[in-house]
Amino acid sequence: MRGRLTILAAVLVSLPAQAQLPKVEKWDIFELELRAPVVGNPFIGTELHAVFENGSHRYEVEGFYDGDGIYRIRFMPDAEGIWRYETLSNRKALHGQKGQFLCTPASPGNHGPVRVRNRYHFEYADGTPFYPFGTTCYGWLFEPESLRQKTLRTLSQSPFNKVRFLVLPAYDEAYVTGPKRLAHFPFEGSPPDGWDFSRFDPEFFRQLEWGVAKLRDLGIEADLIIFRPYDRGKFGFDTLDDETNQRLLRYLVARLAAYRNVWWCLANEQSFIRHLREEDWDRYFQLVAAKDPYGHLRSIHNADVLYDYRKPWVTHVALQYYNVCRSFGAAALVRDIYRKPIVNDEINYEGNISRRWGQLSGEEMVYRFWLAYIGGTYASHGETIDTGTGIEWTSEGGELHGQSPPRIAFLRRIVESGPREGLEPLDHWYVLNLAGKYGEYYLVYFGKEPVREWEFRLPDDGLEDGMRFRVEILDTWNMTITPVAGEFVVRRADAYTFTAPDRPTIQLPGRPYMALRIQRVGPR
Amino acid sequence: MRGRLTILAAVLVSLPAQAQLPKVEKWDIFELELRAPVVGNPFIGTELHAVFENGSHRYEVEGFYDGDGIYRIRFMPDAEGIWRYETLSNRKALHGQKGQFLCTPASPGNHGPVRVRNRYHFEYADGTPFYPFGTTCYGWLFEPESLRQKTLRTLSQSPFNKVRFLVLPAYDEAYVTGPKRLAHFPFEGSPPDGWDFSRFDPEFFRQLEWGVAKLRDLGIEADLIIFRPYDRGKFGFDTLDDETNQRLLRYLVARLAAYRNVWWCLANEQSFIRHLREEDWDRYFQLVAAKDPYGHLRSIHNADVLYDYRKPWVTHVALQYYNVCRSFGAAALVRDIYRKPIVNDEINYEGNISRRWGQLSGEEMVYRFWLAYIGGTYASHGETIDTGTGIEWTSEGGELHGQSPPRIAFLRRIVESGPREGLEPLDHWYVLNLAGKYGEYYLVYFGKEPVREWEFRLPDDGLEDGMRFRVEILDTWNMTITPVAGEFVVRRADAYTFTAPDRPTIQLPGRPYMALRIQRVGPR
Repeated sequence: MRGRLTILAAVLVSLPAQAQLPKVEKWDIFELELRAPVVGNPFIGTELHAVFENGSHRYEVEGFYDGDGIYRIRFMPDAEGIWRYETLSNRKALHGQKGQFLCTPASPGNHGPVRVRNRYHFEYADGTPFYPFGTTCYGWLFEPESLRQKTLRTLSQSPFNKVRFLVLPAYDEAYVTGPKRLAHFPFEGSPPDGWDFSRFDPEFFRQLEWGVAKLRDLGIEADLIIFRPYDRGKFGFDTLDDETNQRLLRYLVARLAAYRNVWWCLANEQSFIRHLREEDWDRYFQLVAAKDPYGHLRSIHNADVLYDYRKPWVTHVALQYYNVCRSFGAAALVRDIYRKPIVNDEINYEGNISRRWGQLSGEEMVYRFWLAYIGGTYASHGETIDTGTGIEWTSEGGELHGQSPPRIAFLRRIVESGPREGLEPLDHWYVLNLAGKYGEYYLVYFGKEPVREWEFRLPDDGLEDGMRFRVEILDTWNMTITPVAGEFVVRRADAYTFTAPDRPTIQLPGRPYMALRIQRVGPR
Repeated sequence: MRGRLTILAAVLVSLPAQAQLPKVEKWDIFELELRAPVVGNPFIGTELHAVFENGSHRYEVEGFYDGDGIYRIRFMPDAEGIWRYETLSNRKALHGQKGQFLCTPASPGNHGPVRVRNRYHFEYADGTPFYPFGTTCYGWLFEPESLRQKTLRTLSQSPFNKVRFLVLPAYDEAYVTGPKRLAHFPFEGSPPDGWDFSRFDPEFFRQLEWGVAKLRDLGIEADLIIFRPYDRGKFGFDTLDDETNQRLLRYLVARLAAYRNVWWCLANEQSFIRHLREEDWDRYFQLVAAKDPYGHLRSIHNADVLYDYRKPWVTHVALQYYNVCRSFGAAALVRDIYRKPIVNDEINYEGNISRRWGQLSGEEMVYRFWLAYIGGTYASHGETIDTGTGIEWTSEGGELHGQSPPRIAFLRRIVESGPREGLEPLDHWYVLNLAGKYGEYYLVYFGKEPVREWEFRLPDDGLEDGMRFRVEILDTWNMTITPVAGEFVVRRADAYTFTAPDRPTIQLPGRPYMALRIQRVGPR
């Protein structure tokens, strides 16, 4: 296939000519629409892709069938200037289409896709740091339009910049009967007749794209959960054969990889999908990595058996392990083991339901968030507060009722105004509650301990006698920041630590959930 | 080579003939001594091995040069009956030696080598459970005879059934000058002239074997630490080239694999050996696995960067990560990540030295041990108590002065009288301080919390209404076991737990370091 392609020699395009080219801003979507007569099953056997080239970069992008005889190829340019393309297909009508477009600068708020930075952290493609503060709305896309719009309004006012949600609806009787009955499913067909798993329903995926685009426009990452258990023998989306799974992965990547805010989460609770083995997930990861031209973030969410996140195709750890955020020290430990960014994507939910994973108090949720971030990791929120409406945030979306979101917003402000590199655990083999940046910035978190006094003592890395610091007392629950008057001048105290001999201690109010923020003010 | 071997057909050996055969008990050492004129460097280029066969098993065992024109091949038979052997060599004098010996039953106390059992635990080859309770005596073998004997006496009265120690002496000026000057080093030569790294000093390795054998006779596993940093540019044993490293590994395996109590720990603080990369360790693991016919346990001890213990040639995790035993929940987490037995081989030492890794109180050491075992993992002790003699247990051996060993002995008695399968964390995604065996045996550990009352509540797995339990209060520091009078009859309380409605709580003395042991008494 590649041999048949003739890449156009670079041609000087005059400015007037440029002006007539289609324009797409950087990291936005250029979409090519192609038509071909439908023969047989257009989802199977039609090979279609395009090569996009700007003189220094070259991408191969798969197309997909979008129904009604229409094929599309979507491309996310990552550099300004002129891009040329040419299609390749085993169907004549789709083959050899050529053209070019002009990639214009990214508009404000468009920072490109998120990638890993400094081993344990994230940034957008333009270098802007991205500190994940996630939430979970598994089924929000399968709700009626009005509720979806409400979910988006709620998100727009929330601290959350990443949402985990399902690509495939989990079995729910409400999706089959009654007012919430789904008009479209991932595959052609509907209950009770069932589906033709060899054919996708494009309208279902357009709905998914609508959601991804809406989140993108709010500056929110779409953490797409592809496979999941939960069909209880009904829908059968969790027992698809390998060929169908692979076809679904390719279709999703072809349709969605050009959306800059996409993250691939290969599964929710992967080990509960009992017919798939670790080797299957390995292959699925490799397929996504091979087909996604942009290298969007890739992970998988575990159940009782953890996937081996050290494997090279895993970009970050999308962990379900509540205890990582219940004890001091565990989050940094998981970092050291995996040597990748850790996103504690399920740490139980703030709620009042009978299932014990949905019973956290607001205090406990906020506490777990702080333990995640003080350990140099990230976390995702969820809410299962039953208000009698039958709508819970983490299942359906809608509104947030919990006490944790404003406190998570407070934490987000602290993190975003902290070291650009992200919070690193400091001296963490010995000190369990300290993060920041040596010599510059220290965050001390006391958790549930109602501390009345803290001895000013910091690990010696990056410190020199005479450095001056200011201190603020943070009440992480009441969301207050109280400066401690004056400065603290440090001196070496022993082989490991510095203290502030003139002001050896700091008084605290003896309440739980307090923290200290210590920042160097001099010498600069 | 293999093609030239003619395995003898099984021959019926008459009983009188058997009586004349050399005899070796199962899992003991059969040693073949061969002589050949010395030509060139006998440590390089002489290939020697033997095939041992008993009709159903076949082992290829490498020989080694032991000085003075003597080559040896050591074999550990793992089945009773007649074994036949034949040597193969590229040197005529060593090639084609044949013979047989009789393997007799293992004597009492000889349980064979230790292997992994039930994914997270250990057993001897005869099926006897082995619950590691380790200690650390890095340099005990490099001390004078009298101190070595004292170390062995101390060990024989201690709770420890595994000792970590160095194969190669770390640089120490005392080894070069003064009364502790070493007469033998791993390589031919001595300071200040240095060594011929292409030649081993057999006498040095005989000393190592003496130590391994003494430990074996005490029923103690020898956890041999092969490579290590610590030479500070002096001895140079930590900057050997790859060829020398590989030759050393083969030599060690050839000399020592037939000792049933050997564990291979490829390195101490591997990441501080800066010139070796993870890929080098991978190769060394594979070399040891290929050369050791018996599959002795294999691990590596980390420093700042953890080796990837998920790799298939790692049998268990020999971890240095203090925090795994400082917070509830972390030990079980590490198990779930690695899915192998976890031996917390360095959790800091009980001591009073200025270095902070050697400053644990006895209470803290015992606390860390309990956190390890309640998490379904194992731990190793160390002691750095400076009594003014210049001898510290973990460096030189000698005597134990700490408060923790008798309490570790208490814990060992608890563990050994508990479930044969070993302690498993129970319902550990929600409950952090509970281990045992569902429906049968529960150990609840309260750590530093001075608990006055415990609500009798157990996870529902394995429980049925009406089951009866007896409870004992364990004081893990004062080493007392106090039965609670009467029985506790359980009933389902909710979707997750059972309680004892007639006796809902248990009173505790409000001291730290308490535990409960709860065992089913009926119905049986």
